[in-house]
Amino acid sequence: MSPRKSVPKNGGDLAAVPETVEAAPAATAGKPLIVASIEVRWSDLDAFNHVNNATYLTYLEEARLQWLKHVPGPWFDEQSMPVLAASEVNYRQSIAWPARLHVELHCARLGNSSMTIAHRIVDADDANRLYSDGQVVLVWMNPASGKSVPLPDAIRSSVV
Amino acid sequence: MSPRKSVPKNGGDLAAVPETVEAAPAATAGKPLIVASIEVRWSDLDAFNHVNNATYLTYLEEARLQWLKHVPGPWFDEQSMPVLAASEVNYRQSIAWPARLHVELHCARLGNSSMTIAHRIVDADDANRLYSDGQVVLVWMNPASGKSVPLPDAIRSSVV
Amino acid sequence: MSPRKSVPKNGGDLAAVPETVEAAPAATAGKPLIVASIEVRWSDLDAFNHVNNATYLTYLEEARLQWLKHVPGPWFDEQSMPVLAASEVNYRQSIAWPARLHVELHCARLGNSSMTIAHRIVDADDANRLYSDGQVVLVWMNPASGKSVPLPDAIRSSVV
Amino acid sequence: MSPRKSVPKNGGDLAAVPETVEAAPAATAGKPLIVASIEVRWSDLDAFNHVNNATYLTYLEEARLQWLKHVPGPWFDEQSMPVLAASEVNYRQSIAWPARLHVELHCARLGNSSMTIAHRIVDADDANRLYSDGQVVLVWMNPASGKSVPLPDAIRSSVV
Repeated sequence: MSPRKSVPKNGGDLAAVPETVEAAPAATAGKPLIVASIEVRWSDLDAFNHVNNATYLTYLEEARLQWLKHVPGPWFDEQSMPVLAASEVNYRQSIAWPARLHVELHCARLGNSSMTIAHRIVDADDANRLYSDGQVVLVWMNPASGKSVPLPDAIRSSVV
Repeated sequence: MSPRKSVPKNGGDLAAVPETVEAAPAATAGKPLIVASIEVRWSDLDAFNHVNNATYLTYLEEARLQWLKHVPGPWFDEQSMPVLAASEVNYRQSIAWPARLHVELHCARLGNSSMTIAHRIVDADDANRLYSDGQVVLVWMNPASGKSVPLPDAIRSSVV
Repeated sequence: MSPRKSVPKNGGDLAAVPETVEAAPAATAGKPLIVASIEVRWSDLDAFNHVNNATYLTYLEEARLQWLKHVPGPWFDEQSMPVLAASEVNYRQSIAWPARLHVELHCARLGNSSMTIAHRIVDADDANRLYSDGQVVLVWMNPASGKSVPLPDAIRSSVV
Repeated sequence: MSPRKSVPKNGGDLAAVPETVEAAPAATAGKPLIVASIEVRWSDLDAFNHVNNATYLTYLEEARLQWLKHVPGPWFDEQSMPVLAASEVNYRQSIAWPARLHVELHCARLGNSSMTIAHRIVDADDANRLYSDGQVVLVWMNPASGKSVPLPDAIRSSVV
């Protein structure tokens, strides 16, 4: 239970790497849907002593559900439920423990049935330290039929 | 600890949803790097009673490390270590418990310092049941300098 | 993503430590309820490069649910559901990746409403390598009233 | 991604269950080692829509490491590292999302090489809502030899 030697400070800076996949153009203009504060847990680390790549999606999920909880109106019912259709995450810099994060979500696109949510994960104490950006796509579906359904009004009006 | 009513069988089929982000063209021609068998755990489920979206990245990681463990030659040292730079996951169908998965990894692209690995997650008992596809990008870096470094020969030769 | 130097082989042997809490007398006589095979995942490791202590409970849960799935008869309904009331885990030896485990569950005690399940986690390739023992207590309750209810017949008869 | 019907409010009250294992006598007199604040994440829930039993150990670990981080003096080195030897957790009441927890740790016993840490997990907004109590045992060991070693002075003096 001893702390490990940490990853060299500049070792995790992936922003300069030229060969990564093209970052999604971050649609971060306008008011964010939410800026969620999340504390990194020691258990979020993996055997390389930084936050595991899968956990970034957990951070996004937490922020998304905190936002949805505050949407002013019903955003799901038995005939209409959001499901995650796709995720794209760029890992810009490794995250150590302890740390406090700000997860900013923006609406990047509203379709008939889907919503693209862009994200930025930054350090809560230094907004210039970008840990991750990218986006996920939510699709509203009828769980019984498996067909996509129109976006709930509450979602549409909470975004505009 | 009682099983939940399961999600309607066709409810999770996202393959037909037109508005999802464009799937990465699956570079699945040629011999896969590995086809890893992974058992779904009950704890992989979330409160919606299907495998959580973040866990797909855990499955990919497990397959990737099983592959790397068998690369014939050194694929990292103190001056050259792979880091995950980006991930793209398309969620095609929800995964229930219990299930056994096949995670197929293919090399989609070799750069100077990076490697793009495409994946398909299918049911081990029904290869036509596609749960997920997408890709991740690994970049080899010098952890001390934070600069990208050439792909190790062992990686390059294990792919071609 | 490089493997770490592993923990010294004998460094994890806690069986010899005299000051640990007294191990529950392992009620491992008789036929086990189940011997579940579980593959360690790399993501089960924590920053100390061995399986995290919390994950042992995940292994027990997986084995328990595999057992319950095969109980010959209904073991829950709307008025009667099992909940975990207590867990005791002795960590005898650290677990590395990769490894395959056998999780043996035994009924240690049947009460009116509760069942104590003893466990042993051993290496699938070396049954003498004991990683953990201990026990958990399940209590059947009426979720609406919060009162304990008699053990289902299916549980009682599957144990004797 | 819709919230599930929640567990009946009294359904999770296990404190009244008579047949659970005897709770460890909570050594909660005196000053706690730490009272750590932890936010429940949605991903801590399992398919029963309350916090998974294994995650309680993650909460304890987080609190323990936050405490150790503030111990005034070296509490480990190459010849002396703490390992978890045993855990006992009583599940008193199920935890829903969202919630904020206080994890209180107390020293219940100091041995030559080991330390027993009692815990209480309560609701941050209602200290009378007890979610869990129990204890864990840490043993300091020489990782190379696998032998237990004397408790570091920093630990001993931080407790008294």
